[in-house]
Amino acid sequence: MPTTTRYRKRVEFSETDMAGIAHFTNFFRWMEAAEAELFESLGTPLIETRNGVSCGWPRVRVQAEFHAPVQFRDEIEVELTVKQVKIRAVEYAFRIFRLGGEEPVHVATGAMTTVFAKRHPETGAIESASIPDELTAALEKLAVHQ
Amino acid sequence: MPTTTRYRKRVEFSETDMAGIAHFTNFFRWMEAAEAELFESLGTPLIETRNGVSCGWPRVRVQAEFHAPVQFRDEIEVELTVKQVKIRAVEYAFRIFRLGGEEPVHVATGAMTTVFAKRHPETGAIESASIPDELTAALEKLAVHQ
Amino acid sequence: MPTTTRYRKRVEFSETDMAGIAHFTNFFRWMEAAEAELFESLGTPLIETRNGVSCGWPRVRVQAEFHAPVQFRDEIEVELTVKQVKIRAVEYAFRIFRLGGEEPVHVATGAMTTVFAKRHPETGAIESASIPDELTAALEKLAVHQ
Amino acid sequence: MPTTTRYRKRVEFSETDMAGIAHFTNFFRWMEAAEAELFESLGTPLIETRNGVSCGWPRVRVQAEFHAPVQFRDEIEVELTVKQVKIRAVEYAFRIFRLGGEEPVHVATGAMTTVFAKRHPETGAIESASIPDELTAALEKLAVHQ
Repeated sequence: MPTTTRYRKRVEFSETDMAGIAHFTNFFRWMEAAEAELFESLGTPLIETRNGVSCGWPRVRVQAEFHAPVQFRDEIEVELTVKQVKIRAVEYAFRIFRLGGEEPVHVATGAMTTVFAKRHPETGAIESASIPDELTAALEKLAVHQ
Repeated sequence: MPTTTRYRKRVEFSETDMAGIAHFTNFFRWMEAAEAELFESLGTPLIETRNGVSCGWPRVRVQAEFHAPVQFRDEIEVELTVKQVKIRAVEYAFRIFRLGGEEPVHVATGAMTTVFAKRHPETGAIESASIPDELTAALEKLAVHQ
Repeated sequence: MPTTTRYRKRVEFSETDMAGIAHFTNFFRWMEAAEAELFESLGTPLIETRNGVSCGWPRVRVQAEFHAPVQFRDEIEVELTVKQVKIRAVEYAFRIFRLGGEEPVHVATGAMTTVFAKRHPETGAIESASIPDELTAALEKLAVHQ
Repeated sequence: MPTTTRYRKRVEFSETDMAGIAHFTNFFRWMEAAEAELFESLGTPLIETRNGVSCGWPRVRVQAEFHAPVQFRDEIEVELTVKQVKIRAVEYAFRIFRLGGEEPVHVATGAMTTVFAKRHPETGAIESASIPDELTAALEKLAVHQ
């Protein structure tokens, strides 16, 4: 059964723009914060050094559709679902809701594909790599399609 | 013939993250800066008050693919193309290049659909509206498909 | 007796920079989030329209000293104190702590002076104004020096 | 004779907030961009690895006074002056101007004290260190008080 990860926050003043609503780039920051919660729930750091090599998750594709604006002080909730776990990449799906009314309002939908990558200790180049087995297993337990 | 709008900048320290590269959300800010250049070239403000009504361009869909990272002090160029002009919306396509080497390196590809919208003077609600005729005409002159 | 307002959050990935720590500008965003909590606790919006005139709190002076860095996933707490309430301005003092260890670590100290301002309905000019009486009274109850 | 470093940019949409002006934290980003120009003019990277040790410039104190707001599309210029060079720290002074009118308008004044620091290769701790001699010499040539 798929398991979702949830992250809640209030929209801050510094996240608004002159149109009076949250700037759209913040929706991606909030999706990323949900991913950080996911990794915390797995007990795995999102950024770490494994055997002396820096590992991380650069994004290769991100996408969002905005259905309704959110404003300063709105409480929002990001719902993250692990869509697919590949050899070197994970695909997440996101739904963002505005809370505080009678029903949550679905304000945005997002997707993110992120690759596991290592920084070459000498050249500094960032290269994709196979996701460590135990992490693949943990992510697949949460995935929609198992 | 389609006309592209170009915007150049250096990657700032505040745009980097702990992975040592520009955070991906900044690519969207840079695309938006290219859109601002486009509107400036048309002599039209991106945000304005028309007949006492605030008008702007909320985003309904954004997307990016990242082919290579960019780093602090890299000079980048955003190339904006008007992909399609609809009654209430415009679709842009973007290519982002890292300059400074022998050849520009194509580091990211993006797309953005943005709607013309008015803020209701009393309720404050943001509602999509038909793009003013003269603006539609100006944008279509730049579009790929005429 | 002075009353402090507290705001807690985790440091997000998007708040870090290539030095591996939270970029210093975020400390000001966190101070501002504490101010938003303060206004919420008073039941007063930070940004509002009073008698058809937009009112807000532009900053006239901000300052911070950084004693220790904070990193991705650190939980921090901002402690806001109302230092002084003037006719048109309020002075806040801030202390920021890193939680999670045996004792909170005092990582930064800040100050902010912000003025009450109205936007002229015709010219759009932002002009300082006297803080409404009931708000002055509410803020003074929280102030260190009464 | 003191030499100033200058950095120009346009205010971007993503830098505005719901009060319709540039959010104050951006002024610090712009000051930092001027510092990056300074280091480029000296031929010294702001962040670098010296003998295998990561070196950077964490801030210990920052301050700004805001005299007038700036808005979307305003062109601004940051003027950086090296105020004082100490054994481990540099003090900068900044003035920010809004261009585009008959005369530049002085919109903000800032100050920043930043220390030279090394990241301990094993513990990862960030420790202040003596500024390398050749850099001290180069910065002092630019300083107001020599």
